[in-house]
Amino acid sequence: MNDIEKTAGSGDWVRAPSAPEIAVARSRLAGRVRHTPVIASGAVQDATGLSVFLKCEQFQQVGAFKARGAMNAVLSLSPAERACGVATHSSGNHGAALAWAARAAGIEATIVVPGGAVATKRAAIEHYGARIVDCGPSQHDREATLAEVVAATGACVIHPYDDARVIAGQATATIELLQSQPAIGRLLVPVGGGGLASGAVLASRWLNHKVEVIGVEPAGADDTRQSLAAGERVALERVNTVADGLRAQVGRATFPVLQAGLGNLLTVTDADILQAMRWAAESAKLVIEPSAATVLAVLLSGKVARRGAPMGAILSGGNVDFTGEVWNRIWRE
Amino acid sequence: MNDIEKTAGSGDWVRAPSAPEIAVARSRLAGRVRHTPVIASGAVQDATGLSVFLKCEQFQQVGAFKARGAMNAVLSLSPAERACGVATHSSGNHGAALAWAARAAGIEATIVVPGGAVATKRAAIEHYGARIVDCGPSQHDREATLAEVVAATGACVIHPYDDARVIAGQATATIELLQSQPAIGRLLVPVGGGGLASGAVLASRWLNHKVEVIGVEPAGADDTRQSLAAGERVALERVNTVADGLRAQVGRATFPVLQAGLGNLLTVTDADILQAMRWAAESAKLVIEPSAATVLAVLLSGKVARRGAPMGAILSGGNVDFTGEVWNRIWRE
Repeated sequence: MNDIEKTAGSGDWVRAPSAPEIAVARSRLAGRVRHTPVIASGAVQDATGLSVFLKCEQFQQVGAFKARGAMNAVLSLSPAERACGVATHSSGNHGAALAWAARAAGIEATIVVPGGAVATKRAAIEHYGARIVDCGPSQHDREATLAEVVAATGACVIHPYDDARVIAGQATATIELLQSQPAIGRLLVPVGGGGLASGAVLASRWLNHKVEVIGVEPAGADDTRQSLAAGERVALERVNTVADGLRAQVGRATFPVLQAGLGNLLTVTDADILQAMRWAAESAKLVIEPSAATVLAVLLSGKVARRGAPMGAILSGGNVDFTGEVWNRIWRE
Repeated sequence: MNDIEKTAGSGDWVRAPSAPEIAVARSRLAGRVRHTPVIASGAVQDATGLSVFLKCEQFQQVGAFKARGAMNAVLSLSPAERACGVATHSSGNHGAALAWAARAAGIEATIVVPGGAVATKRAAIEHYGARIVDCGPSQHDREATLAEVVAATGACVIHPYDDARVIAGQATATIELLQSQPAIGRLLVPVGGGGLASGAVLASRWLNHKVEVIGVEPAGADDTRQSLAAGERVALERVNTVADGLRAQVGRATFPVLQAGLGNLLTVTDADILQAMRWAAESAKLVIEPSAATVLAVLLSGKVARRGAPMGAILSGGNVDFTGEVWNRIWRE
């Protein structure tokens, strides 16, 4: 679980953003993050019979939508907060995104990186100039080390998803997609902590654009599915999925938004994800990471009705380690 | 050399297309090939300081621009010609494109495939339902076997580039690009046999769109550079480049167009190409084959002046064998 709820500094922000906060995020991020392309993939259309518009966040800064939320959070800081810098714990794209956003804004970032993090993701965090503090692999290690960082520096903690500033930033991906393709009536979004998906729900509401938001979760980390069934957040004892970006537990701020606003939630297996990633590279010529491949896996599965409104799908990121285990597994299986 | 000049059936077409033939190709191909996306790559902009619009022919049918010329040629056939089918020799994208176009048009295709062809490219030709005839690896073997096919079937030979129907089809890639981005004043195009590049020259002329067309050739197959210097077509004794799509000799029909219309011709080394391919996958999240990587290699080299008109670049294809030698070499070097 990727949970830093108890850490000082982020408490007031553990909520969904208001409509004005989304409006501010949208204007503030223009020119600060990339307005990523929307592609009507012929390969997807031919393979599925579906008209699908892909929002290509693999082309975003740092290779993932996370740049949006991190940048919005950094730009929300007061001068006093800026002076103390920002911090988070992350083994993935949020760490790189926060490092990138902080550097762009000229402030300090400290990223607590747990042991066992993928080498290329650690390298990305370093590449963007953040200070890295190593810690043990457990959730407790991460929390404790981040608390030490905050105590020493007064840094402002930016949670990867349970933060109104971050959610408002992620909402801008959906705003751009729906504004460029007003006919979209169904939208597939990967669900990990729920920042991107709750942003999608809030964005469609903000735009007054009627769209069925369909979350996609790995079967081995389906806490949101279980939580929706139970009517309250369920913590899994263990998660097991190749989609490293979707292992987090759905958040306190994001869950109620998904509960009220998700039209459906589908799950895909790791085999589906790896197959979709391979298909993306070979047939659709897209570099996407496992988390993003979940939505393609749904499209390729035939689970989506061919009749109905045109679809949107958010490809959440493209950070693949081409010399790593996951990529090699794709071509062996 | 990929030269089937002497083979019966294509003689009348060894010329540049007329303006009306380009107009016909454009209307005829609408809805038959994909209108591929044009991407303003933030990664390219950040890495080079250049504003570049990428015409993404890796997203084209069969994964390469070759679908355009092949489809236009097939749609140009008379009923009598259709009845006899089409034939060519090819170890690469043209073979797959002709197979695909023939199947779409409901006619027979025979592709003469030389020994030593890449397994995935041979598999693609098979996948699109063409009849494959194997032959030895030499140019003589290819010619002789194709002549036998033509003698036996009366098939119409569709040359990969020295054919007005094919050149007119390839021109539509540039037409789409320039019409979508009228500000483009410089255009990078890979040069092999010259079909795509001469199509670019003719397209800009046809649109009356002033653009400097800059050809890009691998240093190990720089016959066009040598031919331009000599004022006549020069045949290389041997070619040596990783860009398997650019090994052909510039054509009899394409060379005069390039001679009159190319603004510049640049060469890149195999090391540049492999580095660009790696950068494309890791940083720009693009799947492109070595031939397409040549234009990115030029952009990344700093050889292009930052000041000047916005640039276009045609990414010619994305057919990569992810389990093959070239892909593996990229990550070793």
